[in-house]
Amino acid sequence: MLRSKFEEELEKLYNQFYAMGTEVVGQLNKAVRSFVTHDRELAREVIEKDEVVNEFESKLEKKSLEIIALQQPVSQDLRTVITVLKASSDVERMGDHAASIAKATIRMKGEERIAVVEKQINEMGKAVKQMLEEAFEAYINLDSDRAYEIAASDEKIDNYFRDIQNLAIEEIKKQPATLFAGKEYFQVIIFLERIGDYARNICEWIVYLETGKIIEM
Amino acid sequence: MLRSKFEEELEKLYNQFYAMGTEVVGQLNKAVRSFVTHDRELAREVIEKDEVVNEFESKLEKKSLEIIALQQPVSQDLRTVITVLKASSDVERMGDHAASIAKATIRMKGEERIAVVEKQINEMGKAVKQMLEEAFEAYINLDSDRAYEIAASDEKIDNYFRDIQNLAIEEIKKQPATLFAGKEYFQVIIFLERIGDYARNICEWIVYLETGKIIEM
Repeated sequence: MLRSKFEEELEKLYNQFYAMGTEVVGQLNKAVRSFVTHDRELAREVIEKDEVVNEFESKLEKKSLEIIALQQPVSQDLRTVITVLKASSDVERMGDHAASIAKATIRMKGEERIAVVEKQINEMGKAVKQMLEEAFEAYINLDSDRAYEIAASDEKIDNYFRDIQNLAIEEIKKQPATLFAGKEYFQVIIFLERIGDYARNICEWIVYLETGKIIEM
Repeated sequence: MLRSKFEEELEKLYNQFYAMGTEVVGQLNKAVRSFVTHDRELAREVIEKDEVVNEFESKLEKKSLEIIALQQPVSQDLRTVITVLKASSDVERMGDHAASIAKATIRMKGEERIAVVEKQINEMGKAVKQMLEEAFEAYINLDSDRAYEIAASDEKIDNYFRDIQNLAIEEIKKQPATLFAGKEYFQVIIFLERIGDYARNICEWIVYLETGKIIEM
């Protein structure tokens, strides 16, 4: 195979990972929207589309392994492939978590809810979505300085996580009939918090991709 | 480098992944034990030792990348390295989740609890631990037939997950003072359920390692 053909394959892999990321940002956005607007139709759409995310992962894994085995890439090229190979699992898990939020939307049918908590969950969802979008932008721009900044914004998400739990506990005490909804809130914010955690991991891989350094943010 | 030296390195990598797995099984075991026996001392030990698991991951990642870059392994050898590279993130996340359970133990200090729920969480924890142990055994024995069986046992964990939620909701309704504990229960079982999910992933990598096939269990 000609070198130029190899470069083309590599660029395609790089872009496909970004495409997978874009897909998951959309999934997260719709999942949170379905949850806070109680839109089960939209939730079902997210659940169905999780398959697309899973297929992205298997394709990217297969392609990465094929490139490593057949082309034996080195230095930056190798790092491009390794990053996709490693980080695609994280993106797939983000997709899983978005689907889990959508499933919570469906279970919530007819349950008594807590509007102030859902408002906060919406805000937390927006913060996570922003972090995720920025992480994929930093990836496509190969910008490890930005990656460090974005990873630091995970703190904001951790604050939402803590505050929403306290708020929900106070509210459920006042209205015990919201307990089932409360259970879903406690779990949905875990999914959001984990997505933030995975986004931080993507940032670590951007640094590896640009610098070759394996770091812990 | 002589071929035999390379083989030695590869075997060491293979064994170190197993050692990391063993470490995480221990962490999970202690985390669940600390949670159900309200042992904050033990919980702190788990939290501190999470660092050891993280170090395992960075070492295994670095070593895997080094082997790929310098030795350009092929076929089964390459698969050995790829499996460690991919699956070590899963094992690290399991360790994170064990630490999260230990942190819940500490937050529960002085809170009113629900004994029947904790008993079930203990059972769920045992099932997850068994699944995990078996997955690492199948890895070290390179037994993909077993890997399929083990992956299927994830269903048992999903049943615990559902049943414990229902039980906890009923019990909190009866004793509203247990709400804070209830929040922790809802979250601890998510961590356990996710560990089961990661164990299923390890099983997928065992199949890849033995057969070269990338599958979804």
